[in-house]
Amino acid sequence: MGSIFGTLFRVSTWGESHGAAVGVVVDGVPAGLPLEMEEVQAFLDRRKPGQSRYASARAEDDRVEILSGIFEGQTTGTPISMMVRNADHRSADYSHIQHIFRPGHADYTFWQKYGIRDYRGGGRSSARETIGRVAGGAIAAKLLEEMGMDFLTYTKSIGPHEIFHIHPEEIAENPLNMPDKGAAEKAMAYIEEAMRDSDSVGGVVECRVNGLPVGLGENVFEKLDARLAEAMLSIGAAKGFEIGAGFEAAGLRGSIDNDAFKAEDGRVQKNTNYSGGVLGGMSDGSELVFRVAFKPTPSIAREQSTITTELENTTISIHGRHDPVIVPRAVVVVESMAALVLADLLLLNATARMEWLHRIYDPGRTE
Amino acid sequence: MGSIFGTLFRVSTWGESHGAAVGVVVDGVPAGLPLEMEEVQAFLDRRKPGQSRYASARAEDDRVEILSGIFEGQTTGTPISMMVRNADHRSADYSHIQHIFRPGHADYTFWQKYGIRDYRGGGRSSARETIGRVAGGAIAAKLLEEMGMDFLTYTKSIGPHEIFHIHPEEIAENPLNMPDKGAAEKAMAYIEEAMRDSDSVGGVVECRVNGLPVGLGENVFEKLDARLAEAMLSIGAAKGFEIGAGFEAAGLRGSIDNDAFKAEDGRVQKNTNYSGGVLGGMSDGSELVFRVAFKPTPSIAREQSTITTELENTTISIHGRHDPVIVPRAVVVVESMAALVLADLLLLNATARMEWLHRIYDPGRTE
Amino acid sequence: MGSIFGTLFRVSTWGESHGAAVGVVVDGVPAGLPLEMEEVQAFLDRRKPGQSRYASARAEDDRVEILSGIFEGQTTGTPISMMVRNADHRSADYSHIQHIFRPGHADYTFWQKYGIRDYRGGGRSSARETIGRVAGGAIAAKLLEEMGMDFLTYTKSIGPHEIFHIHPEEIAENPLNMPDKGAAEKAMAYIEEAMRDSDSVGGVVECRVNGLPVGLGENVFEKLDARLAEAMLSIGAAKGFEIGAGFEAAGLRGSIDNDAFKAEDGRVQKNTNYSGGVLGGMSDGSELVFRVAFKPTPSIAREQSTITTELENTTISIHGRHDPVIVPRAVVVVESMAALVLADLLLLNATARMEWLHRIYDPGRTE
Amino acid sequence: MGSIFGTLFRVSTWGESHGAAVGVVVDGVPAGLPLEMEEVQAFLDRRKPGQSRYASARAEDDRVEILSGIFEGQTTGTPISMMVRNADHRSADYSHIQHIFRPGHADYTFWQKYGIRDYRGGGRSSARETIGRVAGGAIAAKLLEEMGMDFLTYTKSIGPHEIFHIHPEEIAENPLNMPDKGAAEKAMAYIEEAMRDSDSVGGVVECRVNGLPVGLGENVFEKLDARLAEAMLSIGAAKGFEIGAGFEAAGLRGSIDNDAFKAEDGRVQKNTNYSGGVLGGMSDGSELVFRVAFKPTPSIAREQSTITTELENTTISIHGRHDPVIVPRAVVVVESMAALVLADLLLLNATARMEWLHRIYDPGRTE
Repeated sequence: MGSIFGTLFRVSTWGESHGAAVGVVVDGVPAGLPLEMEEVQAFLDRRKPGQSRYASARAEDDRVEILSGIFEGQTTGTPISMMVRNADHRSADYSHIQHIFRPGHADYTFWQKYGIRDYRGGGRSSARETIGRVAGGAIAAKLLEEMGMDFLTYTKSIGPHEIFHIHPEEIAENPLNMPDKGAAEKAMAYIEEAMRDSDSVGGVVECRVNGLPVGLGENVFEKLDARLAEAMLSIGAAKGFEIGAGFEAAGLRGSIDNDAFKAEDGRVQKNTNYSGGVLGGMSDGSELVFRVAFKPTPSIAREQSTITTELENTTISIHGRHDPVIVPRAVVVVESMAALVLADLLLLNATARMEWLHRIYDPGRTE
Repeated sequence: MGSIFGTLFRVSTWGESHGAAVGVVVDGVPAGLPLEMEEVQAFLDRRKPGQSRYASARAEDDRVEILSGIFEGQTTGTPISMMVRNADHRSADYSHIQHIFRPGHADYTFWQKYGIRDYRGGGRSSARETIGRVAGGAIAAKLLEEMGMDFLTYTKSIGPHEIFHIHPEEIAENPLNMPDKGAAEKAMAYIEEAMRDSDSVGGVVECRVNGLPVGLGENVFEKLDARLAEAMLSIGAAKGFEIGAGFEAAGLRGSIDNDAFKAEDGRVQKNTNYSGGVLGGMSDGSELVFRVAFKPTPSIAREQSTITTELENTTISIHGRHDPVIVPRAVVVVESMAALVLADLLLLNATARMEWLHRIYDPGRTE
Repeated sequence: MGSIFGTLFRVSTWGESHGAAVGVVVDGVPAGLPLEMEEVQAFLDRRKPGQSRYASARAEDDRVEILSGIFEGQTTGTPISMMVRNADHRSADYSHIQHIFRPGHADYTFWQKYGIRDYRGGGRSSARETIGRVAGGAIAAKLLEEMGMDFLTYTKSIGPHEIFHIHPEEIAENPLNMPDKGAAEKAMAYIEEAMRDSDSVGGVVECRVNGLPVGLGENVFEKLDARLAEAMLSIGAAKGFEIGAGFEAAGLRGSIDNDAFKAEDGRVQKNTNYSGGVLGGMSDGSELVFRVAFKPTPSIAREQSTITTELENTTISIHGRHDPVIVPRAVVVVESMAALVLADLLLLNATARMEWLHRIYDPGRTE
Repeated sequence: MGSIFGTLFRVSTWGESHGAAVGVVVDGVPAGLPLEMEEVQAFLDRRKPGQSRYASARAEDDRVEILSGIFEGQTTGTPISMMVRNADHRSADYSHIQHIFRPGHADYTFWQKYGIRDYRGGGRSSARETIGRVAGGAIAAKLLEEMGMDFLTYTKSIGPHEIFHIHPEEIAENPLNMPDKGAAEKAMAYIEEAMRDSDSVGGVVECRVNGLPVGLGENVFEKLDARLAEAMLSIGAAKGFEIGAGFEAAGLRGSIDNDAFKAEDGRVQKNTNYSGGVLGGMSDGSELVFRVAFKPTPSIAREQSTITTELENTTISIHGRHDPVIVPRAVVVVESMAALVLADLLLLNATARMEWLHRIYDPGRTE
């Protein structure tokens, strides 16, 4: 189990890398949201491989089919089922790893947990699994856009090469989705070097969301930052999450980290945003800012020591189509998961006050 | 909402800092677990303030009362309700903050979300809320201990002062719960300096768990690391989570980070543990290692700029009983939340295979 | 597990008949609901035993204590914890059933499931468990009242004696909570006869709710009638549930059962209400009407054949304080569970439409 | 929302009558269950219409496609996605009801709830929605069969015509799925009469399950009978649920209803089974017996009064393909929903005892 995410806005994803298809069912979308298939497709296209030499050459077309829940261009309140066929099966590629556990992959743990595993292309733990997340995230993002929120998500660093500035228009101009083309060039050279060594590299994705109402996030366990952390660590290869000042906050003084409030023209402001837009687990009206660390792609052509399913020592070299870095393609996955969390919390928050119930059920009443 | 955590092993916490009591209901504990009140009390005593000059002087006795679910020294499979009375009410202390939002606290967001807030001592967002987590965590930890797991949790760093070695016996020998008394001394000097400035500091907690069976964690969304990340970020003042190499993994090469497998005497080993004990979101049989970053205590005596509930600019100095650093008391909270996650995943994993169902329901059957 | 009910408006009940206390935590109550302890107490008083010779003589005072979640007479959006101490322990009464399974009770099944059981007074399966439901239901009912709904719940029949009319004012005038005092008199004679035989009887409770907005209930699985059915069958001794025409609908023709619509003064009406106020699992704006069948009290003084925990045949006569009929005291439990379901569905429904989200988040916007 | 059912064994259904397809995702199926597509197809074939003149003539082929979660003939522990294309679209049939609410249908409530509705063939509230339930139920039933349980489900009555005996082999010999061909003949005459009047009829389905281990069902809210009641009332047109003696229990004496225990050859027996196999909400080892009442098909050719979406009075006659009775086709839906409940409770029960955890995690340990 484990393939359902959310309380009110819920996605149920399914599918293996080399099965017939991958997909998602999205339940709990409010009725009356305008939605076109092309809006979902645009999100999926952002995770498409084969767009550069830093991404795997697998010829994925990944056309989404919407099977239910939309009528005359609008959501109807019923589940939205979406599917992408797995067109490019090459199961033969994987027969040689049937009896070997690839280091850094889920092969060993799936085998121990279930006693059976679909070894073809990583099966359920393949990056193709994220198609369901991204298709669902596209709908969540559309909902949030309607409610006035917008996202800016990008590669913050690859290995040691970090951006110095954020120029959103530069994100699409380099294959790494970095908003700083100078940093992107250095990062590309760094990746090239790893590729020459038949090796792979990691990096960090950063996400910024503006326009959140104050108060998203529930008290104690379902805090906004807690739900985001869970969502991000659920992405394959993610190893860390931080919000606002994050790990650096551990080195700050309270007098700095506290983000003093001020009022300007009747609006609440903060001079700084070390909190990253969250106070007490709820959105505080500032920009939401968080980062996710990704490890290097575990599939490398370099020879590695490992073991067989019979627990014999052996070596493996993983050839074929594998990205030398996951990070650029993870950008849209991070954004999708953030959208799923925010959409869910936006719906949960709608019942926080009696006066809001009255607005819905007795719209004529004066509060 | 938001005060229920877990799918099978579920805690439902409640209580405000200055209400009548705080507590927790733990549902889903398997029957037949030996449990004494003193085992829960021992956990609560680890979060007790007033143990040093680095912790607030509030005279909390915090005696737990077990109200249900235990019969003749064993769990019965029914909910275990536990409660700690709030003995040391000093509500008057807080009247001056009734109309002011403390920077770095949840005052502003609670007020905007709910339109009403119990301003006395932080109400629901007070650190006293963690009593429910720790009481529940004590039971989870007892269950895990019975199943062969053990925890080592400690302060890894305070500000820039990080431990160099891990000597478990030193943890209890310093008020900071550091397993390196040399580092603890430097950290104490660092805290003293901040206290002289009426300021506060942050730090990092590290948790290590041994003895996990392979396979804890569900695929896709309910991964072990995802659930841990959510649990940790749900702790007040937590700003970051990382597992294994964490953010450093972003700077490693795949050939290093992959933790090559080897077989020794029929047992699976890894030479390194950059993964932190998790592969594909499931425990891999290695030591589970993760870290949580905590920001400085937001309550400081130093004057800070802020606003009133009428959105007028003002200043505030927070006097009274406040720890200059949260980290040492957060150690047992981190351990408790980790225990809650692991207990839940241990139960969830029990139905992963048909052959395990047969072991339960047809114990005589040969698999 | 199993002691948590609801998705947004959630109760977590706990406690055994002869433990220290019984109680409930209610999470998800919107902030700003006025609530006094006496309103909860009034609900609890309706289930109080010892009010007539048809109810057990146990001297339960059952004073509720509210431990959290209320501030200055209003809900705050945080969990509301409520507790009733078990004052009248007489554990010695039950030692003779320690090794015997009472027919019609949960003794045997608890023992087989958990391998341990708190045999004192039924433990968790005692009717005292309903205190948590009723305390939680009182809050749900208050919320619904604020939103314009009202309940009428009563004993419809005891054995073969069914009411002929519904005069609400007569409900409190007889110890059976029947709205027809003539029927109540016959029912009392029927109960007396059973008591002379050291036996017990059953009956049916009916609940009517008016003022529901159209559309409560979610599609497919979380239908209003499905959630009510679950709630009602979760009450001890309940054996059947029906809504509207119920089992009689199986004998009707479609042309009768369909409840033709008509419009009067711009309002939608139905000439009949065979549906019981639910169409397609959602409230249709008519009166909600459903019934719950209760079996006879299983505790009887008459000698019954049964077995011991060692699986030896024996007999048992259950003396002590036991109601000869459960039904009158079940009335408030039925109403409480219905209130919990309706409050939950009222909150769930609040996010069914985009336009309602706009009413909450952009109140100035013209739809 | 509302389209997800279950805690561990979870189905997520989707699809409208006249959309592209209908389907289900089943999450939480233990790995290692042998499963062939034909086993699912066999269940779906049992709900196939067009098998007699008492069922609608729609030429549904309803071939299921399994899209994920099965590898080499076994479940893998990952979600199983199944889909049936909607081949026989005749959307034009429904344009005339676009602006009219059919009595007894969900048209009015969906429209009021969501403000938009897919009026073609009932959309989400069509009986085609049950395809997802039945496909999921087929897998649950396979799991239960492996664990030693078996089902007998049939039409108990149509209108006033009830079976006198249960001869399982007769079920497939008449189009009404009655285990008594004499009763079936009378019921057919009764249906014919209604058809001549352009009317419809209702009836009752009964389900019997044998081989349950003792203890399925959780305490308080997630009782076996409560979960079954919810599952059954979630089926369109269901109006009542009863278990064991059901509503008749309200007329019995405790001394009869209690089902005295006896021990024979070390096995626990009951002379009677008024309980229907459930005590205290848990399976008691006897046959599980429950009934579900279904109202007459709401679609009838007879003219009925109703209203338009503009709230004007009008009349409607519903022609086209409509069963004069739902009951025979509901039999497999009842069985499927029961299987989903039992599979979920079987998995939930697996963690009820510490000793069972030891059986899984320390199989060598002596209990």
